[in-house]
Amino acid sequence: MYYGAAYYPEHKTAEELEHDMILLIESGINTVRMGEFAWCRMEPREGEYQFDWLEAAVERLGKAGIRSIICTPTACPPAWLVYKHPEVVYVDNRGLERPFGGRRFYCYNNPVYREYSRKITEEIGRRFGKNPYVCGFQIDNEPAQEASGRCHCPVCQAKFSEWLKDKYKTIEEYNRRSGNIFWGQDYDSFDQIRMPVNTIEVSAEQKMPVYFENPTLRLEYERFCSESQIEYQDIQSDVLHGYTEYPVTTNGTGLATNSIDYYKSTRKLDCYGFDYYPGLRDAAVDSFPYAFARGVKDGAPFWVMEFMSGGGHRFGGSGRVQPNPGALKQAVLQSFAHGAEMMLHFQFRTFPFGAEQLNYAIVDMDGVPRRRYYEMQETARLLKELEPLENAGFANEIAICVDYDTHWALRIKPVNDPDFKYLDYAGKMYHVLEDNGYNSDVISYDADFSKYKFLIVPSAFVASREFQQKLRRFTEEGGILLGTFLTSAKNEDNVGYTDSLPAGLTDVFGAVVEEVEPVFKDNHTNVRLDLDGSEAVSTDGMWSDILGGSARAIGTYTQDYKTDSMVISENTYGKGTAVYMGTDLEKEAMGELFQYLCRRAGISKNPVKAEEKIEVVRRVLNGENYYYVFNFTAKEAEVSVETPVYDYLKKCRYEEKAVLERNGFAVLKEIKG
Amino acid sequence: MYYGAAYYPEHKTAEELEHDMILLIESGINTVRMGEFAWCRMEPREGEYQFDWLEAAVERLGKAGIRSIICTPTACPPAWLVYKHPEVVYVDNRGLERPFGGRRFYCYNNPVYREYSRKITEEIGRRFGKNPYVCGFQIDNEPAQEASGRCHCPVCQAKFSEWLKDKYKTIEEYNRRSGNIFWGQDYDSFDQIRMPVNTIEVSAEQKMPVYFENPTLRLEYERFCSESQIEYQDIQSDVLHGYTEYPVTTNGTGLATNSIDYYKSTRKLDCYGFDYYPGLRDAAVDSFPYAFARGVKDGAPFWVMEFMSGGGHRFGGSGRVQPNPGALKQAVLQSFAHGAEMMLHFQFRTFPFGAEQLNYAIVDMDGVPRRRYYEMQETARLLKELEPLENAGFANEIAICVDYDTHWALRIKPVNDPDFKYLDYAGKMYHVLEDNGYNSDVISYDADFSKYKFLIVPSAFVASREFQQKLRRFTEEGGILLGTFLTSAKNEDNVGYTDSLPAGLTDVFGAVVEEVEPVFKDNHTNVRLDLDGSEAVSTDGMWSDILGGSARAIGTYTQDYKTDSMVISENTYGKGTAVYMGTDLEKEAMGELFQYLCRRAGISKNPVKAEEKIEVVRRVLNGENYYYVFNFTAKEAEVSVETPVYDYLKKCRYEEKAVLERNGFAVLKEIKG
Amino acid sequence: MYYGAAYYPEHKTAEELEHDMILLIESGINTVRMGEFAWCRMEPREGEYQFDWLEAAVERLGKAGIRSIICTPTACPPAWLVYKHPEVVYVDNRGLERPFGGRRFYCYNNPVYREYSRKITEEIGRRFGKNPYVCGFQIDNEPAQEASGRCHCPVCQAKFSEWLKDKYKTIEEYNRRSGNIFWGQDYDSFDQIRMPVNTIEVSAEQKMPVYFENPTLRLEYERFCSESQIEYQDIQSDVLHGYTEYPVTTNGTGLATNSIDYYKSTRKLDCYGFDYYPGLRDAAVDSFPYAFARGVKDGAPFWVMEFMSGGGHRFGGSGRVQPNPGALKQAVLQSFAHGAEMMLHFQFRTFPFGAEQLNYAIVDMDGVPRRRYYEMQETARLLKELEPLENAGFANEIAICVDYDTHWALRIKPVNDPDFKYLDYAGKMYHVLEDNGYNSDVISYDADFSKYKFLIVPSAFVASREFQQKLRRFTEEGGILLGTFLTSAKNEDNVGYTDSLPAGLTDVFGAVVEEVEPVFKDNHTNVRLDLDGSEAVSTDGMWSDILGGSARAIGTYTQDYKTDSMVISENTYGKGTAVYMGTDLEKEAMGELFQYLCRRAGISKNPVKAEEKIEVVRRVLNGENYYYVFNFTAKEAEVSVETPVYDYLKKCRYEEKAVLERNGFAVLKEIKG
Repeated sequence: MYYGAAYYPEHKTAEELEHDMILLIESGINTVRMGEFAWCRMEPREGEYQFDWLEAAVERLGKAGIRSIICTPTACPPAWLVYKHPEVVYVDNRGLERPFGGRRFYCYNNPVYREYSRKITEEIGRRFGKNPYVCGFQIDNEPAQEASGRCHCPVCQAKFSEWLKDKYKTIEEYNRRSGNIFWGQDYDSFDQIRMPVNTIEVSAEQKMPVYFENPTLRLEYERFCSESQIEYQDIQSDVLHGYTEYPVTTNGTGLATNSIDYYKSTRKLDCYGFDYYPGLRDAAVDSFPYAFARGVKDGAPFWVMEFMSGGGHRFGGSGRVQPNPGALKQAVLQSFAHGAEMMLHFQFRTFPFGAEQLNYAIVDMDGVPRRRYYEMQETARLLKELEPLENAGFANEIAICVDYDTHWALRIKPVNDPDFKYLDYAGKMYHVLEDNGYNSDVISYDADFSKYKFLIVPSAFVASREFQQKLRRFTEEGGILLGTFLTSAKNEDNVGYTDSLPAGLTDVFGAVVEEVEPVFKDNHTNVRLDLDGSEAVSTDGMWSDILGGSARAIGTYTQDYKTDSMVISENTYGKGTAVYMGTDLEKEAMGELFQYLCRRAGISKNPVKAEEKIEVVRRVLNGENYYYVFNFTAKEAEVSVETPVYDYLKKCRYEEKAVLERNGFAVLKEIKG
Repeated sequence: MYYGAAYYPEHKTAEELEHDMILLIESGINTVRMGEFAWCRMEPREGEYQFDWLEAAVERLGKAGIRSIICTPTACPPAWLVYKHPEVVYVDNRGLERPFGGRRFYCYNNPVYREYSRKITEEIGRRFGKNPYVCGFQIDNEPAQEASGRCHCPVCQAKFSEWLKDKYKTIEEYNRRSGNIFWGQDYDSFDQIRMPVNTIEVSAEQKMPVYFENPTLRLEYERFCSESQIEYQDIQSDVLHGYTEYPVTTNGTGLATNSIDYYKSTRKLDCYGFDYYPGLRDAAVDSFPYAFARGVKDGAPFWVMEFMSGGGHRFGGSGRVQPNPGALKQAVLQSFAHGAEMMLHFQFRTFPFGAEQLNYAIVDMDGVPRRRYYEMQETARLLKELEPLENAGFANEIAICVDYDTHWALRIKPVNDPDFKYLDYAGKMYHVLEDNGYNSDVISYDADFSKYKFLIVPSAFVASREFQQKLRRFTEEGGILLGTFLTSAKNEDNVGYTDSLPAGLTDVFGAVVEEVEPVFKDNHTNVRLDLDGSEAVSTDGMWSDILGGSARAIGTYTQDYKTDSMVISENTYGKGTAVYMGTDLEKEAMGELFQYLCRRAGISKNPVKAEEKIEVVRRVLNGENYYYVFNFTAKEAEVSVETPVYDYLKKCRYEEKAVLERNGFAVLKEIKG
Repeated sequence: MYYGAAYYPEHKTAEELEHDMILLIESGINTVRMGEFAWCRMEPREGEYQFDWLEAAVERLGKAGIRSIICTPTACPPAWLVYKHPEVVYVDNRGLERPFGGRRFYCYNNPVYREYSRKITEEIGRRFGKNPYVCGFQIDNEPAQEASGRCHCPVCQAKFSEWLKDKYKTIEEYNRRSGNIFWGQDYDSFDQIRMPVNTIEVSAEQKMPVYFENPTLRLEYERFCSESQIEYQDIQSDVLHGYTEYPVTTNGTGLATNSIDYYKSTRKLDCYGFDYYPGLRDAAVDSFPYAFARGVKDGAPFWVMEFMSGGGHRFGGSGRVQPNPGALKQAVLQSFAHGAEMMLHFQFRTFPFGAEQLNYAIVDMDGVPRRRYYEMQETARLLKELEPLENAGFANEIAICVDYDTHWALRIKPVNDPDFKYLDYAGKMYHVLEDNGYNSDVISYDADFSKYKFLIVPSAFVASREFQQKLRRFTEEGGILLGTFLTSAKNEDNVGYTDSLPAGLTDVFGAVVEEVEPVFKDNHTNVRLDLDGSEAVSTDGMWSDILGGSARAIGTYTQDYKTDSMVISENTYGKGTAVYMGTDLEKEAMGELFQYLCRRAGISKNPVKAEEKIEVVRRVLNGENYYYVFNFTAKEAEVSVETPVYDYLKKCRYEEKAVLERNGFAVLKEIKG
């Protein structure tokens, strides 16, 4: 595994650089990432390229066994470029130009900027593409971060109109499919169409708080922006692939924060890379982003390009707490267990200047190695010990399906906001599975469903006819399908279906949605589950459907006027079973439901007992099961095992239980009877 | 009574239309409202009018006994108009043009837009003015909704200067009356005056959070905008009245949300219409808006143009809960009891597309009639049964006076914000009266006071000399007058009076305000009421006056340095009595005070016992009293009666009590002894 | 002492003026402040000066023994000026011009406005500079109030670039010292540099919520704006000093709210003046602003130009509660005890018009003298009685050091926001000292430290090498130095030090910061203090350092992984002692630490026992100690005395205790044994 940190040689005097180089080399890591904000040093004047300083660092580290990820610096164009071509700047949804001075202030569609980006990338590819001490390339930095993914400049405006015209051909077709007749919004021509003035971007301000735009237009705009940014990125990936055999990627910002469709954006990249900053003080690190990452390129290993390194001051705001001793090490191992192939801390040494000054790093501003540095050394040592297990695979039989159209549609027009967040809800299901002893994959609607026995489709709000067919076939051929409230309510135009809901699937589920409402604090009701002998009760949550239809009611309401109405249905369809869950459940009841469905699907639990804050990950190597176990309980914990296991690191055998220290972890190999 | 829903034939294919027509006809309703957003279909290209589709719907429904309200479509100008005349768009207080795409993005003062509006209205009048299946016209839709009532475009700017000049004649007069000398703001000429940059509009953003503008200027700006919008509306009402005998109105947004002065705006309209979206899940529907509505045109019946129809998804945000069974029916009957002549649900069938897609309606997106549809049928049947009572009158002896100048002045410069809201406070008094067995009217300062025995004037912050005289005369001639804190502090220029407060009324009340302060959580004190034998105690609230003067103290403070100071005064003036209430009271104490004053005024309680969540409304027909009773307690309730009554719907007699089911209601006719 | 109120003759008719003059004269006060918003009356047309009205008021009052502070009216330029020169207006960080109509809508750097300001000041100086009834001048009004201190107009932009060039000479030097290489922000020339788009101004809106700017640039911008405003003010002070011998000042807004560096801004002023609006209802008035004020010009008396006068309505928002009886009087005496030489209420009589209409004043809108007026009379009488004590000095041996660079740096990049506020934290230390019986001074980094025995330096985040040396020398020469967390982390360029922290002082403190983090609700830990026999415990707070080094640990953590780590160090350095406090402490533990350090420093407690809400201030006159005692407990209180004292006002002697009524105060002279 690649393990290391981000480093910035361009910030340093010769003396400082020498100090850091020694620390880096002695830290035991094998990878650094460099260059992502150094355009003004790589090309201080137009066309005058200077890479010697970077190459020197690459060589120095490389000779000591540390390989480099080289980044293209396009997140921060240099002053000369911006002042020569002021039209390249990003324009936000309020029409404000983003000035030189922060980062990510460029428009990804601007042709001038695209050309400059191509050229600097070409120089980098030419210079570092074959360097033996390099191990990969990162394009740009955190695309769309800090609300830079929804440009409203004139170039984007014109391109968006054109893009719509390409897709819909005639304005009549666009009017019809968008339902523009609502509020009398039929357009006469594509060039009348403006980009939405409001936005889904995190932290962005709405230009007009009380202005409501057509949801089809808004979804198309999300797609357009995501595609535009992929196009921009691929200009660079194409160039780099022309010069290098090393993997080329970029660093996304985890899940769908910045609303670039990572399933699409990684098609021309060699792996999915992303940045991750979980809390590390007595906190269970959420592994859902890892499961998602693994699914981005169909189970391929992923890269964590930036990861927590410590606490203290912070970018903006109030500061960040330190990881407690062992938490950093544990977190790195956890990423490894979930399929990470690279894990780089951000960053090696604290910046004294700039917007991120005084922030967390492995080594403090004064360059004195302390606790976190020594923990990094220990981590590097452990990763070496685990090298033989690197090629272990995953063999999960359960998958959770997520999708960007639905994600965007639910941000454009939220449901039960702010409680219901689509991806958080998928995460809840992932964790309830895990806490009940089942590992699962997170996959896209385009993935191959046939290798799974049990498919969970949370709130598939936007569901194409093709996707409906895919779910139908999966069930027909013997799968267990679990759909939830909000499923198949809209088509890909972000327009509601006018057949009964779940549209196109009422026969598969044997159920029809008869009444819906959000569930707030004041209109909670109770639900009873009847699961073939075992029972469970729960309050409802998030959303409440009342179901009709011929399916068997395995969940019913038990309160008020909804009493006895069906809320969870089970239906045999073909060789399989389709279950529709018309409301959210409390974790315990959801766990009961999942166990019931796993029993039906013939999926067995991990023999190492997981529970909340004890995470267990199964990996399979040469037919042997390895269980990675992580103790996030903030105290020593006992973990019971149902079969004898062998502790890979401590090299001993347990019959009934393993004991994990606070922030501890273990790799337990199942001993076959 | 007109009962029905909004419907949108322009959204439908022929087949869909046919499906809906059958459902509409079988629903039992007698009214639909159509056309308010269909300009792009009525006039798809400039001057090319197409009304056949609308007429066909009118005819089809009309022949089945359903009459139509036809709307002018000016809330949403078509794309061709806006792109040909971009200057017609609305400009908000921040100077931002509102683009084509939402709704209400036009300037009501723009002469080009006024001319286009006149023309389309003329075509509508010509085509539908005499149609026998039409029953009325709605102008535009929800004027000023979504912060569209305070345009800042150049046309408005120039007109506002001119408007001020017309009113004040000389700049010296304007400077003097505005107190522009404060902060040295004397103007040299009217054209130096700019519209305020900040605004009272709901949800609008302030352009400059820390910028304080002259309160006279701000009040004048509110008046100017209200008048401008009335002028715009009356262009249409004048046109329509030239073509039709049917009533012409528009749909306001209830009380004073959008700050158009409805007392003035309805002068050229045939009735007051408004939209109302109360919660219907175990909630008591607030009838204060109905009492207000009845007062807009001196007690004339009002129209509810849009009303709740269900729950589920919502316009923007988190969704809406469903009404529980019976709540819809109960709410419609309640509006009828309070004087509604029309009640239209919004809307008949859920939209699949557009900004309001998936929202609540009577019939779901899939067109299958379910619970709410059947409840609509039942409601229509009940309304038929109650038809003989339609002409029953109101005979309330108590009135609550409200006013737009005060409303605006208190939004411009709030008092005890956000706790004290002027109209909510009037509503509180209305409900305390109701809960104590007294129905009341809500009237404007211009109304005829002489028909009331007891007049309540909550916080008449802005009080003209004429209004002071009116209150004086009312009392002199024998009325019971109740004024409260904040009364008569300012003149119509929004300038404070420099005589002692309540200005111009200290002799009427026999009281002078000696000290004032807001009442927050930390400076509450206690008050004791001494009401001719009966006593009551309460904490103070909202605001606290210490009163001097010769009046009898019927309320005194009992705590801290205010101890024994007068807070409620009672004074005999002429043949009447004037009471000044220098603070808010808790509901129970306020009830005691009202009972005391009603006893003095000789007003008797309803014999059907009201209380919180049991609403009783008295109507009088041919000298007989009918009591409409509504059970909002969310469970079965017993209602005691002091005289024998006859249940008009159940056709039986009660001696001592009636039992109302959950969400139930009854019409009880008093049986004369 | 000067005691009085603000008054506005320009608002009045002749009759009103006469009424007020009589009230003013009978009130017993000796000072009024006039003219600060009257430019449009002083110069109604360009070059046409009219001061007769003002002179008449000055004369009338003067002859009755009331002297006048005359203000320059530049906070509000007249309409003719702004419409003739629209370029003089203020432009906020969003690029929005502030229109005529509020106040403070001018740019302090605009040369046209500077010239007009100079001229009107000259006229005022010429007319009133020698008037015997005048006693001083106020320049402008509340500089930078209402977010008017960070102009972004083109004039400012150009001047800022020039200012940076003057300071740094070459762009390479600026790039290097700013660390512009971070995020690749090297500039090619000074004219590429733009002012920051975001701002630290109170209530201002951030232009780009997610845009992070270089902290060096941001700090320089704060300095530039502060200096620009001082330059503007000094144009006026220079003019006035040419015409008058009377003191010239302006009215700041207390502490550092508006972020003008008062230590620098008062260099050309004759005293420090400021406005202060503390709560007066059962509230302890915070005297920290007085201690700060006294330190602005090295212990010289200060002027309070505006002070609370009452409650009721308010500028904007919800209103203000009234002072309880006696609170106004007590508060005025308190300011006197802390060194005020002038105390003017804002204001004498309530405005009926303008943005501040209906607000609090001494006399209500109706001109009837009531409670607050009579309390003012009583206060004036008491001040006369205390006149013999006016020249008493302060003899504090403890000082708290504060600084604008640190203040600005912590607003630009906050720590533990919003809990940790730099000046509030200094205030906390001041009050813990006071509650433990020690009065202290508040001084700047440039003050003379040698007269103090105990120096407290809270969170000296930005510490120059010179300041480090100053602290070193203070300790070396025998002082007790207390530094806290966040000390000496950055240099004056707002760039972090790369030597170990506290930079340049690790040998003085004998301690090195090894790990830092903010302390939030969830990561609190416990601390034990071991103070030479006495012990104390506390939770940590705000921030947590783990210290290494050779110093004696007088505070250690007692919980979790930090257990036994040093958090408070004590080190002998030269003849003195340096203590580093690596976290905040609860008040009681902090009090123990202070007592311990005072004992070491040989500082004795006041013999009149202070505690929370009982404030004791020592003054020294002719070698005698006078203790001003204030009862803020909201009830009667007993105060114990350790030596016999003489009550200066009541003229009696106490041996063991004095009794103070609610809102009471006493002046107790120590009787020497």
